[in-house]
Parts: sequence; C-alpha cells; structure tokens
Amino acid sequence: MTQPLRIGIAGLGTVGTGVVKIVRQKANLLAARAGRPIQIVAVSARSRNKDRGVSLGGYGWEDDPVALATREDVDVFVELMGGADGPAKAATEAALAAGKDVVTANKAMLAIHGQDLAERAETAGHVIRFEAAVAGGIPVVKALTEGLAGNEVTRVMGVMNGTCNYILTRMEEAGLPYEDVFEEARQLGYLEADPNLDVGGIDAGHKLALLAAIAYGTQVNFDAVELEGIQQISIEDIRTAANMGFRIKLLGVAQMTGRGLEQRMSPCLVPADSPLGQLQGGTNMVVLEGDAVGQIVLRGAGAGEGPTASAVMSDVIEIARGTRLTTFGQPAHGLEIARPARASAPAPYYLRMRLIDKPGAMAKVATVLGDAGISIDRMRQTRHDDTTAPVVIVTHKTARDALDSALRYLPGTGVVQGEAVAIRIEDV
Amino acid sequence: MTQPLRIGIAGLGTVGTGVVKIVRQKANLLAARAGRPIQIVAVSARSRNKDRGVSLGGYGWEDDPVALATREDVDVFVELMGGADGPAKAATEAALAAGKDVVTANKAMLAIHGQDLAERAETAGHVIRFEAAVAGGIPVVKALTEGLAGNEVTRVMGVMNGTCNYILTRMEEAGLPYEDVFEEARQLGYLEADPNLDVGGIDAGHKLALLAAIAYGTQVNFDAVELEGIQQISIEDIRTAANMGFRIKLLGVAQMTGRGLEQRMSPCLVPADSPLGQLQGGTNMVVLEGDAVGQIVLRGAGAGEGPTASAVMSDVIEIARGTRLTTFGQPAHGLEIARPARASAPAPYYLRMRLIDKPGAMAKVATVLGDAGISIDRMRQTRHDDTTAPVVIVTHKTARDALDSALRYLPGTGVVQGEAVAIRIEDV
Repeated sequence: MTQPLRIGIAGLGTVGTGVVKIVRQKANLLAARAGRPIQIVAVSARSRNKDRGVSLGGYGWEDDPVALATREDVDVFVELMGGADGPAKAATEAALAAGKDVVTANKAMLAIHGQDLAERAETAGHVIRFEAAVAGGIPVVKALTEGLAGNEVTRVMGVMNGTCNYILTRMEEAGLPYEDVFEEARQLGYLEADPNLDVGGIDAGHKLALLAAIAYGTQVNFDAVELEGIQQISIEDIRTAANMGFRIKLLGVAQMTGRGLEQRMSPCLVPADSPLGQLQGGTNMVVLEGDAVGQIVLRGAGAGEGPTASAVMSDVIEIARGTRLTTFGQPAHGLEIARPARASAPAPYYLRMRLIDKPGAMAKVATVLGDAGISIDRMRQTRHDDTTAPVVIVTHKTARDALDSALRYLPGTGVVQGEAVAIRIEDV
Repeated sequence: MTQPLRIGIAGLGTVGTGVVKIVRQKANLLAARAGRPIQIVAVSARSRNKDRGVSLGGYGWEDDPVALATREDVDVFVELMGGADGPAKAATEAALAAGKDVVTANKAMLAIHGQDLAERAETAGHVIRFEAAVAGGIPVVKALTEGLAGNEVTRVMGVMNGTCNYILTRMEEAGLPYEDVFEEARQLGYLEADPNLDVGGIDAGHKLALLAAIAYGTQVNFDAVELEGIQQISIEDIRTAANMGFRIKLLGVAQMTGRGLEQRMSPCLVPADSPLGQLQGGTNMVVLEGDAVGQIVLRGAGAGEGPTASAVMSDVIEIARGTRLTTFGQPAHGLEIARPARASAPAPYYLRMRLIDKPGAMAKVATVLGDAGISIDRMRQTRHDDTTAPVVIVTHKTARDALDSALRYLPGTGVVQGEAVAIRIEDV
C-alpha cells in the first residue's frame, strides 16, 4: 500500500481547483492519513489557459475527459464537471469500464443515472463515492451509509440548498419580497445558470433522492420526488409564520411508510426554535433518524471551494486506504424500486388566502374546510384593505387529500381572491 | 465475503443488551448492508442468569472474558465491560494477540492505554474501532477520521457528558442549586458509580483526548487534558450568565497551537443562541473545525442503549465490509507525543466575586485587574445584602496567566469575601 494513489481530475471550477490546492498543500498529511501518497497525474477542463490561482505544473493535460478517465496511469477518476448527462456521464462510464474507481460531486448524474452507474461499478468491481454530491462539506453520505448502518432509518430530512435558505433568510431579515432577493442572489453569483435548479428545488431534490436510496436500500428514484420550489413564498407568509413561531424552509423529507416511499422537497413551516428553524443563510443541515440512534443532526457549509473539496478528498482518501463500499450501501443489483407514496401522512397546514370583504365570507370558507373534514386550530386576519382581507388559518392534522379537495372547492365560494397558499407544518 | 462475521460480546449491560437486540432483530438488514451475515457466537457477563429482556439462546457462554476473546470461532471481540484496566484491558490484549479485531465502547481504556493498544493492533495486523466510546450515537469518530481526512483540523469542541449537561440545564430551568440537581440526577440513575467521572469532567476528558489524537495525529494523552468539573458552578453563575446572553456548558476544546497541543475540559460560557448554547438536557454536540471544511456541527444522543449500540454496530458492520482503518487514523508507530500547552490563548473571562461593602472596595479590585493588564468590558453588581455585594465582571480578552496572577492578588485586597470564580467565555 505504499504505491501512490494516482488521480485524474476532470473539471477545474471552484471545487476542482480546491481539490488541487489540498493535494498540493497537504501532501505529507494526506500521505500519513491515507497510508500512501495521493498524486494528481492529469487534469482536464474546458480551458487550459485560464488562471485558477494554483499551479497545474507537472500534471498531464487532456482536452477530452473520456481520455483522462481511461488513462493507463489513473487509478481514480475524479469527476467534477457536473451535468446529469453529456461529458460527465460519458467519462464516468468510460472510467468504470476501464477499471477505475470514481469519485464525483455530481448529484444530478447520480440522482438520474445512479442505479445504472452503481450496477456498472459493481459489475466491474469498482467503486463510486459521492460524499461531495450531498450537503457539501457535511460527511452525511458517510454518516448514513456507515454510521447508521445498524439502524432502520425512520426519516431523513434536510435543508440542502444554501441558495434557497439564503433567499428565505434574507427575505425575513431585510423584509424584502422574493423577487428582490432573488435578483440579489443572482448578482452575488449564488444561483445556478438555470435558477430553477435552485429555487425550483431540483438540486435539493437530487440530494434527497440519493440519501433516500441509501437510507431505505432502494433504487435511487429522483422522478418520484414531489418537488415544490420557493417561488410562491411571499414576504407575507414569512412574516405571518414568524409571528406564529415558525420559519419557512425548503425542506426535504424521505420516509418509508406502509404505502411506499415518500420523498418530497417543498417549503415547510418548522418551529423557529428547532435546529432546522434556526438555520440561517447558506448553511445546510441534515437530520437523520434511526430506530436505535434516535435523531442525529449534522450542520455545515453546503457549498463552496473548501467544504466541497474536503468532501471529495474524504472519498479519495477512503479509496487510498483500501475501503471498498458499494455505491448506495448495499449491492446494486439487489436494490428494488420502492413504490412511490404521495406525502399523504396527516400534518397540520398553514393556509393563507385573501377574502373578499362581504358578509358570510369566512363562513363559506369554514364550511368548505369543514366539509372536507378539516378542523381549524388557529385563524387570524392580518390586515385589511378596502375590499379584501388576508386571512391565515392553521389547521389541525389533516390528510393532504382532504386539503387538496378543500383547495379545489375554495374558488367556487366566490369569496376567495386569487389562489390560496398551503404550506405543510413539519414535525421536526 | 459471504462467510458470516462472528462476534463475541463481553459485557451485557445496557449497551451489550442493545447490541444483542439489533443483531437478533435486524439480521436481514445487517446482512444486506454488511454484505455478509453478522452472527453472535458467544457472550460473557458477570451474571449468567439475570433477565435482560432478550434471549441469549444459541450463544456460547464464557465466564471469563479472556476466554471469550480468544475463542477460535470469534472474528471480532466486542468489549462492552468498561473500566480502564482489569478484565477489559486483559481481554482486549488477549483478543489482539489471538488475531481478533476489537470493537469497544471503552473511552477510559483507550484514553489511557490507547497508544499501546493501537501499537499492538498494528503489529498484529488487526483493528480497534471505538465509535461508541465518544458521544454515543453520533458518528463523530468516523466524521473526524474519515470525513475530515483532507483537512488540517483547527479545533475540536464538544459537550460530551450528557449528565453534566442535564445538571446545568436543569439548574437553569428549575432554578435549583447544584447540590439538589446532583441528588436528583443520582436518583434518576444518571450518574456513574463514581460521580466524579461525570461531574469532574473525567469521562468527557477521556473522549476529548481520543478526538484530539485523531485530529492532530498525536499519541492519545489523557494526562495532558486540563480538567475542571462543574461542581463549583452556582445557580447564581447560571442566572447571571443567562442575563448576559450566555449559557454555561462543560465544554471540551482541543486545539494545536504554536506552543503545543491544548486540551481542556472545563465549564465555559458560550452564547445562548449558538448551537452549543442551545443544547439542552442529555444531548451531546461535537463541533469539528477544519481549514477546508469550516465548521461542522454534530448533535445527537450521547448515551443510552439504542444510540450506543448503534455506534457499536457501525463498527462491526465496517469490519464486516472489509474496511481496515488504523486506530487513530494514522499508523500508530509513527505517532508522536504532542507537547502539552496550557490553555493560554487569550479569551474574555467571566469573574464573579463577593465584595465586602466598604468604601474603595471596587477601586481595589479594579487596580488588581489593571495591574495584571486586564481590562474590563462589563461590570455589574447583581444584588446586595447587609455586608457584601456580589459583583460580576466580564473582561476583555486576557491571557490565562494574567488572570491567574490577578486571582492570586485579589485576597490580599481584603475586600473580596471567599474565592473569586473565573469562567472562560469561549468563542464558538
């Protein structure tokens, strides 16, 4: 085991550059911990001449990531290009076929093609590790795959998109509407090229699907994640929630139920004084619940050069140490597809609507809710303009189906202006 | 790898019983995750006939743990007896000599004999894993050894004794003095047979020494941990701290400095709204800081049957999967002894004393502090009886030496009744 572990890095953006820095600056420390030197033999990126603030001297260069992935002198292919398909997938498949192990930060690729790639790795006798794909620097893939291996996992929750949490936090702190803070985030460079990946919950949904696969020993199934973004969250919702002791978070929840596997990524109200409620700004938090261990909360930076490179290096060192784990914690060929269950476990809901100010309006709304079997815990009328009154209702626990039924009947009452907003209140 | 992994369990207290339950109740899940069945072949405990609420049917029995540890049919010796020396150490040494891997929850044994045992394991080509020895169910040994392996660790902090945190939390909530809550904790069975292990900080100090060894690649050195228990914390301190926005925690801090390795376990003031400050009751929290990853916070149950058994099982499954890690994350024979450094990095301090009510008293105290180079940030006189006035001072950042010097001079002023209490305010 004193032969160096030779890695090839495809993608020299923020994370790739961070990995190069760690390997260059901490050679002795890494060798001591890994039991052998870690050596970069070659790299690949879109532009060879860009100044990345770190020397690439001594490394081979490949224009084509597939060529890098299949180089004779590469033991581990480190994929940091991103994108579910295209070069990242082609190079990963080529690496596995050529007998390489793979380390990747690519949540989209694994959320969509993870089962296929895991089977390819297993067939080839190689490993795919992806700590950096979920919640940046937080070692949550390791915690779930290894730390909780003796548990039936009962629930996985997480705030795993720092940009969304930044937007929601900033709206509350500055009292600004969604559109303004969205624009601010764009100018700060916090948003993906396609912002819907962030604010539509897709990026966080990818991460949730990966954790769910590990937690429940099922095939990763991103298509079954119920997705709802934060675009509909108004400053009014945030303020009203705060007044009632809640914060709104883009929260992922994966839970195996008698009806199948629930996976949802959606805005939720959580108690302001809970660990999730207290999470401010771009930080990530993952909550793992197991039948033996109870609740484990993990918190840290979900993105950025250092944290993500730290996660990549933990995988590289794991392979250097000789650890060989299956991709999702169990043999890939045995994994079944879980029946997707709609998130229908009863929960209290926050409902906001604008009532047209005429006699009997509230009675009509109450009747619709009552007919759907929904009982009201709290109700508050927040302000009042000439013709409409904003009304907030907190329900007792209600099934999602009952709620949806009520939401369908509300417009017919003729007393609700626009659409009612419904946000689940999560028991964290 | 389809041969079962055969384990022998010594010690059938809370944790041992929990491990037996998991192995019996989750055989299929464990086999799927570990890639092979986990099988208990034999057990050992003080009493064979005690009802433990779980069947031991089908397992061999050994009165002598050394006999268990050396059984031909045992692959992994699971040591859950406790105690730094005696049977636990004898059996662990015997197991390693007989070619077994060892999983243990024994923080005292490893904090004191860890270097020797790690060298024995290394020489024999076997592993010692001890996730359950630190912070119960929180997978912190794994997070630090593996998750942060690409980092220079800059600081490790932790609240790792649930009993102390329970006592401090309960004092604040119920407004009760230390002695009353201590007695309550004893009656609830929260205290070790020797309570000084808990309230004296020894148990938590053992855990800190183990984390420090991993973090800094040095020989575990419990003797170098500066220990201070919670016995001197009064309800007055807790109330005053709360009024200033702080909570008092028994906090462990390990930090490599230019002068050597600081390891201290002592009561500290932390901001009430920080993750550590918000930790209530028996829960544990560990904060890991690395140069790349930034700050990672881990929170969970620090003790109890399920959480601790969960940690033991994570180690057993790791070995079943074929993972072979060095005990402290680097080869044991290369580890050096860090120079112990006194915790002298400047910090603000909380000082509480009782001033004898005579003219010029405060001036004398201020002079002593000023002469030691200590400047005052805030001062408050909390109440007043006939002859003495309790005074609380928060200093600006000051070196511990300067503080100690001032504390030595205070009695000579003739205006301070009893001893002044000094508690460090930790920057978390």
